[in-house]
Amino acid sequence: MTTDTITAAYYRGDRSFEVEQTSPSAPQVGEVAIRVAYCGICGTDMHVFHGNMDARVGPKRIIGHEMSGTVTALGEGVSSVKPGQKVVVRPLDHCGTCPACKAGYKHICHKLKFLGLDTDGAMQEVWTVPAHTLHVLPDDMRMDHAALIEPVSVACHDVRLSELKPGEDVVVIGGGPIGILVAMVARDAGGRVVISEVNPNRLAIAEKLGFETVNPTEKDLAAEINALTGDKGADVVFEVSGTQAGVDAITVVAATRARIVMVAIHAKKPQIDLFQFFWRELKLIGARVYEAEDYERAIAIMTSGAIDADTVITDVNPLTDIQAAFEALDRSPTALKTLIKVEAEA
Amino acid sequence: MTTDTITAAYYRGDRSFEVEQTSPSAPQVGEVAIRVAYCGICGTDMHVFHGNMDARVGPKRIIGHEMSGTVTALGEGVSSVKPGQKVVVRPLDHCGTCPACKAGYKHICHKLKFLGLDTDGAMQEVWTVPAHTLHVLPDDMRMDHAALIEPVSVACHDVRLSELKPGEDVVVIGGGPIGILVAMVARDAGGRVVISEVNPNRLAIAEKLGFETVNPTEKDLAAEINALTGDKGADVVFEVSGTQAGVDAITVVAATRARIVMVAIHAKKPQIDLFQFFWRELKLIGARVYEAEDYERAIAIMTSGAIDADTVITDVNPLTDIQAAFEALDRSPTALKTLIKVEAEA
Repeated sequence: MTTDTITAAYYRGDRSFEVEQTSPSAPQVGEVAIRVAYCGICGTDMHVFHGNMDARVGPKRIIGHEMSGTVTALGEGVSSVKPGQKVVVRPLDHCGTCPACKAGYKHICHKLKFLGLDTDGAMQEVWTVPAHTLHVLPDDMRMDHAALIEPVSVACHDVRLSELKPGEDVVVIGGGPIGILVAMVARDAGGRVVISEVNPNRLAIAEKLGFETVNPTEKDLAAEINALTGDKGADVVFEVSGTQAGVDAITVVAATRARIVMVAIHAKKPQIDLFQFFWRELKLIGARVYEAEDYERAIAIMTSGAIDADTVITDVNPLTDIQAAFEALDRSPTALKTLIKVEAEA
Repeated sequence: MTTDTITAAYYRGDRSFEVEQTSPSAPQVGEVAIRVAYCGICGTDMHVFHGNMDARVGPKRIIGHEMSGTVTALGEGVSSVKPGQKVVVRPLDHCGTCPACKAGYKHICHKLKFLGLDTDGAMQEVWTVPAHTLHVLPDDMRMDHAALIEPVSVACHDVRLSELKPGEDVVVIGGGPIGILVAMVARDAGGRVVISEVNPNRLAIAEKLGFETVNPTEKDLAAEINALTGDKGADVVFEVSGTQAGVDAITVVAATRARIVMVAIHAKKPQIDLFQFFWRELKLIGARVYEAEDYERAIAIMTSGAIDADTVITDVNPLTDIQAAFEALDRSPTALKTLIKVEAEA
């Protein structure tokens, strides 16, 4: 890499990326330039690829936010990091003045800018971001594994909001990339985790990772959970499927006073069994992105080895192959997490 | 009253009561006999009257549970109360062995017996109940007001589970008897309460009680709440309407991280905007009946005068007129709470 030009991948609409040379933007006051090592492809990035977010991202956008990298240059006034430090970016920029920010919930600011969607992101060799978004990594962390810290932080936020206690019974509905990470973080917190998933490939990965699984198209999920819990039900449920079947499942597997965390994005309004919320005093907890402490927790969990990163990362492709990587992920029945290796080989 | 025979009202199905003389059951081990003063008509009692609960209550059931009375006799082993004390009954009898009881949630025991539905209730001059269901009242409490303590305890439970803090903005959706009591208890806890209600008579009562009101069929509820809260929204929402419109309203009036308490019984599965739960990290909290501390709180609130009992109690009728009282309440557009005066005039 030279500092004169860098390689960047632009999403240009219509399921297409263009890889170009560009000039990196120098860090301004309060900003930091980062040499990006890896960047994972998020479900949201796949929504962009499918054209569902064209109005938001515009006609020429560098996407990507699940990244790892190394600090290369500091803008004026930045003292929280040093060049050469390994970092990840918490890709949220808040307004500071809306009711949510004033109440202390700046991660769900009413005018939140999500870096890599509302601004250019990490699918470029040098990414310049506000210094307040950075978290420093241990020197010996593998940079491919570090690219999972953003989605692991989502899982840490979900598990934190669930108030999961050691020994509690947990059901994760949906065993995709986020569901698997939620399951691993919940297990690390002492939960006895069962994953409900319909895709046989994902069930196989969940089982390889040591989880109990139920395929609800083959077995009665509620009966299975009741059998495993002495008819108590699950103390904590994570809805990660985004389906009506998933919303139907939350109320039938839940124990009295269970906490149900709504992780999935439900674009349509599903039907929900509110009678069961009343009858068993269930609690539904919406959870979105993460806060700083979730990133610190995710870094600690990744360092501890509780996340089997090598099983979660199913593909790695160079930035120049980003088009093929998105296409392959889109049609793959077995892929879990695809990383783009943004930094060119030395 | 003699102790030889008492007057009791039996629900006999088909919207009909029969008032008969019967022998009071002597209190057994752990039981207490109470001379009933007043018994309110609950929404659940009206469901019984409409024939919706015939399978549960059977062909000859004394219903009623919103009562006040005086201890007259103690069964063996009872030392928690004394004859002559004014009491109310918390009409819940739990099994003690199910997963909910074991977890400490005996008020929502999986095999809960609700006194006055699953067993005979308070629409009789002498009611015999387990001693553990009793709460002692101050000597100077008016017995007609004391008949409101059961529904006030519902409101205390709802407000307690909402974790309402002084100065927070509250919307109560539905201004019937329970909605009005929730509003009064929330106001007593320091909430700034707005009641959303469509019935002009109920709106008038809410306004007489000093509440801000919105009729959502005439004004845009979300716009009104935003205007009142600086675009923040309500910190706490109580859904007491049991309607799809009410469920639609909970997500549009809620502030970021709002707590929404599900008080109403939704027999059908409504559609719900789960995207907003994710987007604003909303919390939905199911709330059913009450626990002992809610009764103690309700007695304290009633003693303090924070409940305008004389406005809430819109009718009082003798036990011998129970049939007419149910019929009148059923067709009244203005009634809020009807009491039956169970104890005959001296």
